[in-house]
Amino acid sequence: MITLNRAYNFNAGPSALPLPVLQLAQEELVNFKNTGMSVMELSHRSKEFEDVLTHAKETLTELLNIPDTHEILFLQGGASLQFSMIPMNFLAPDQVGAYVLTGSWSEKALKEAKKLGKTAVVASTKEENYRSIPALDDVKLPKEEIGYLHITSNNTIFGTQWADYPSIEGVDLIADMSSDILCRQIDVSKFSLIYAGAQKNLGPSGVTVVILKKELLKRIPEGLPTMLNYETHVKSNSLYNTPPTFGIYMLSLVLDWIKEQGGVKAIEAQNHKKAKLLYTSMERSNGFYTPHATEESRSIMNVTFTLPTDELTTAFLQQAKEKGFVGLAGHRSIGGCRASIYNAVPLEACEALAVFMDEFAQANV
Amino acid sequence: MITLNRAYNFNAGPSALPLPVLQLAQEELVNFKNTGMSVMELSHRSKEFEDVLTHAKETLTELLNIPDTHEILFLQGGASLQFSMIPMNFLAPDQVGAYVLTGSWSEKALKEAKKLGKTAVVASTKEENYRSIPALDDVKLPKEEIGYLHITSNNTIFGTQWADYPSIEGVDLIADMSSDILCRQIDVSKFSLIYAGAQKNLGPSGVTVVILKKELLKRIPEGLPTMLNYETHVKSNSLYNTPPTFGIYMLSLVLDWIKEQGGVKAIEAQNHKKAKLLYTSMERSNGFYTPHATEESRSIMNVTFTLPTDELTTAFLQQAKEKGFVGLAGHRSIGGCRASIYNAVPLEACEALAVFMDEFAQANV
Repeated sequence: MITLNRAYNFNAGPSALPLPVLQLAQEELVNFKNTGMSVMELSHRSKEFEDVLTHAKETLTELLNIPDTHEILFLQGGASLQFSMIPMNFLAPDQVGAYVLTGSWSEKALKEAKKLGKTAVVASTKEENYRSIPALDDVKLPKEEIGYLHITSNNTIFGTQWADYPSIEGVDLIADMSSDILCRQIDVSKFSLIYAGAQKNLGPSGVTVVILKKELLKRIPEGLPTMLNYETHVKSNSLYNTPPTFGIYMLSLVLDWIKEQGGVKAIEAQNHKKAKLLYTSMERSNGFYTPHATEESRSIMNVTFTLPTDELTTAFLQQAKEKGFVGLAGHRSIGGCRASIYNAVPLEACEALAVFMDEFAQANV
Repeated sequence: MITLNRAYNFNAGPSALPLPVLQLAQEELVNFKNTGMSVMELSHRSKEFEDVLTHAKETLTELLNIPDTHEILFLQGGASLQFSMIPMNFLAPDQVGAYVLTGSWSEKALKEAKKLGKTAVVASTKEENYRSIPALDDVKLPKEEIGYLHITSNNTIFGTQWADYPSIEGVDLIADMSSDILCRQIDVSKFSLIYAGAQKNLGPSGVTVVILKKELLKRIPEGLPTMLNYETHVKSNSLYNTPPTFGIYMLSLVLDWIKEQGGVKAIEAQNHKKAKLLYTSMERSNGFYTPHATEESRSIMNVTFTLPTDELTTAFLQQAKEKGFVGLAGHRSIGGCRASIYNAVPLEACEALAVFMDEFAQANV
């Protein structure tokens, strides 16, 4: 155990949060900054809460080097609601929404867009059970006018991640970064819209971060439901209606923690170290563990692998559970095992898992 | 102060939470029931979290005596998203959505419905600045087929509340109960849909409770965005995508607390006692304080009143602030003062406010 009673949490989301963040939240839960109130009891229009919101936006801007051309929003409904909001706002009747399929979440995004407009699958690795990310050259756009190009930057279920992003002149790139935002440095200016449910790398569930190029707002059609119109939330600084105030507060603490770790650059180095521990253990196992993803598409957030037989998988998961590892069962759609090693999962947890993997392989070869 | 450093919180929402609830949440924030994880770090598909969700549903069912004909959902987006989801799901092209206007929130609900179908205002007290609730006889439905009849059960800004609900044979009654759910006993079977943002009487912001008559599901048209279709959430027990897990946990604790107080009947008696303290102080003031609402429409949740001059209002709010009262300024649309005295506001806070109101009136007549 990392500290007394602390689980080795490899949950896919909601997932591990930094212990110092939880401890600070605990400390000030009943009395936030001497207001005599919990942060949950503050009015969302109070000075105290506005400070929390502003601080979260400023810290995220600093960490991701977000340019002035973009606006940060804190919304509700998760990535799943973004799947619909994106085509509602940015897919005109004469345009095609271009989707790259790299896993179940891309498929869900496409399914929602299809209900609302014309779409095209411009690259897909579905036929090989999403073991890899398409090569950038394989992303071929149709001749029709494109509304946007949509990708899923990291695929939690299959354990794959884009190494480099497509960049096509004149085409708005939209990315679902729910499972890898802030795991590494990116150039935000290349994206017209980034969205991410908070419950993996940002905080608790119930907050969705959207980073939106303001130019896009011009494209929003009239008559949309107010809550589903991005302009509503830009105009009101995410305070059109009552936002999930506690979630935004937790997110602001997680961002502070990332800054204290040395920012995204330092987190990225740590993430590579963590992922390497597990991938190396698999390599050492001489085929006992088989990674689901091809080497060049491997994720540093979700490490997916299979064992030689279902019986061994069951035994592995059972013993892991007894040793205090949580959340290692693979998603039901591909089976096997998965270790989600988001930013807040400590190096020590990955070290412990690698040791366990080595021991289990040696004992069961 | 009620306890050391505890503010007298009269915020309109987010608002006061029961102190024992906050203390319990604080105690188990880092290590939930010996899992070695925070409740925020649990998978939403784990046994531990499913127990939280089930417990919340069972306790709410017990407290409100919810019949088997109805389903409880925990959604995101607040009442504001319900304003759109209701007509999307339950207003067919040949039907009219009937709205009673009793304040700003009713107006917003109507505005969103207008974007999506035909509507009619079937009663309104707008002309008298929403000082009262229409008489039940004044609710006159048009001859067209009615999709539903929509009311706002309590009006936070104007301080009015329905004493009795309209009940029209064959017409589905839908109520926004964001600001008074669980403040008193109601007959849930008379409603086809009840919805409530949690941040007033139920818990923190970021969770929306929907109590839905299952028969209504038959009326949902095809092709709706998955997240905006009530059936999605009924079928998946509110776990279609990651729900706001911490919010649902807090809500379950608040429901436990209501039960410990003696249930809704006991809470209702306490709420009448609290409201009476403030209304009686106004009566004693011989016109120094003027309630905004007419006597028969007065809310037991939001007590709104004005003082003789703007200068006195400013002085009242300033002195109140110095004495530790929070959130007493009236909404900008009607000015004056407002004390929101939701379930979790203790009797002692209302007693202290009544004393202060008496003293201020005596000193400034």
